[in-house]
Amino acid sequence: MPNFCFILEYDGSDFEGWQSQPGEHRTIQDSLEDAIEQITGEKVRVDASGRTDAGVHALGQVVSVSLETELGPEVLMRGLNARLPQDIVVLECREVPADFHARRSARGKLYRYTLWNGPLRSPLRRRRSYAFPHALNLDRMRQAATDLVGTHDFASFAASGSSVQTTVRTLSRVEIRGEVGGEIVFEVEGGGFLRHMVRNLVGTLLEIGQDRRPGDGLAKLLEAQDRSLAGPTAPAQGLVLVEVLY
Amino acid sequence: MPNFCFILEYDGSDFEGWQSQPGEHRTIQDSLEDAIEQITGEKVRVDASGRTDAGVHALGQVVSVSLETELGPEVLMRGLNARLPQDIVVLECREVPADFHARRSARGKLYRYTLWNGPLRSPLRRRRSYAFPHALNLDRMRQAATDLVGTHDFASFAASGSSVQTTVRTLSRVEIRGEVGGEIVFEVEGGGFLRHMVRNLVGTLLEIGQDRRPGDGLAKLLEAQDRSLAGPTAPAQGLVLVEVLY
Repeated sequence: MPNFCFILEYDGSDFEGWQSQPGEHRTIQDSLEDAIEQITGEKVRVDASGRTDAGVHALGQVVSVSLETELGPEVLMRGLNARLPQDIVVLECREVPADFHARRSARGKLYRYTLWNGPLRSPLRRRRSYAFPHALNLDRMRQAATDLVGTHDFASFAASGSSVQTTVRTLSRVEIRGEVGGEIVFEVEGGGFLRHMVRNLVGTLLEIGQDRRPGDGLAKLLEAQDRSLAGPTAPAQGLVLVEVLY
Repeated sequence: MPNFCFILEYDGSDFEGWQSQPGEHRTIQDSLEDAIEQITGEKVRVDASGRTDAGVHALGQVVSVSLETELGPEVLMRGLNARLPQDIVVLECREVPADFHARRSARGKLYRYTLWNGPLRSPLRRRRSYAFPHALNLDRMRQAATDLVGTHDFASFAASGSSVQTTVRTLSRVEIRGEVGGEIVFEVEGGGFLRHMVRNLVGTLLEIGQDRRPGDGLAKLLEAQDRSLAGPTAPAQGLVLVEVLY
């Protein structure tokens, strides 16, 4: 039974997240599984590298699934793209070894968070960025972010109520760039992420950038392992899962 | 009675164009006039630099209107932005001389048309660009576009059925750029535009870029003054009114 790997781009705006849920919910997983069933007749559950929350986008979500189909990857991909809604596309489809699993085989991920940093909201950017009107000291944020790189217990940045075996994660890079035209882009790369982790890191860095929180406090905040001490969760629409690393 | 000028950004995706229409239609003009009425109590008709069609966006649409209000431009702008839907924003508001009229005073406009030139559609770009999968020869298109610059009768590129006094217009610039990441951007600047003119120019240049039309035929096509000889109208979502020049 061939094992397939798909790379997906999607606009998360009109979805209630990646994961299938009981009841009437428009999810990316359901849309993909429906399209697979239409083409192969197979009712399957697909595995993603991880869930994305409602409103979060992807340029490179990775999904694996074993199918009985005799269709080749090219034909499968064309068929899926003809049936998927306009806000999802399969960018790549490959046959992969039987032991490949989108989540378990993943070695890391790259997320990007985009801020529109101007005094007024921007209608043309509103679905893909968070409009943040306050002045920010990017150097202060960059300096603070160095405390996040490395292996730490990120419990202070995990969505409250999430149950995971360990909240220790390793970040290899936190980059903050001011772009031409007023956007500010955060890129966060790491071996794994807790729920809301990137959005909570961004929300906390924004407080530092406004001088509302000490610039040298992130090491202590990590030590505290207390979500209530970190900043707010930045809104979903600014976040994109750019790439999953294997 | 003070005369005001507004600069608007809007995402045209969910509007049936700029212009107010009889019946239940969501238009940018109605949204703005409703917001003005909520703030000033005045039922007015506003004048735009020109209509934009359904699905066309603006980064700098200009609108003028005379109001009896004693509110200053800053207060008016804040009030409008609090009441306008998320897909419209007032970027600037100024008091202007009584003889300023957004359409009649305009000396020119800059439009941008964005193409997503990849083999597959892009969900995250779909609301702001036209997904065009075929290979294009940009140099051929640029060379052909030089015939368009200057003063010509653009009847071949006007929406059929439009009634205007003259179809003579002057273009000062037609630029075609291949951008990093796969987008192709057309910028067209001129003294005035006929309905669908930019989209018809783009549709025709795309045929030239695919070698489906001679690269040296645009001068003849202008002379023919026959819409049926030009290319198709490129879809609305790729077009943005960037700036109105006064």
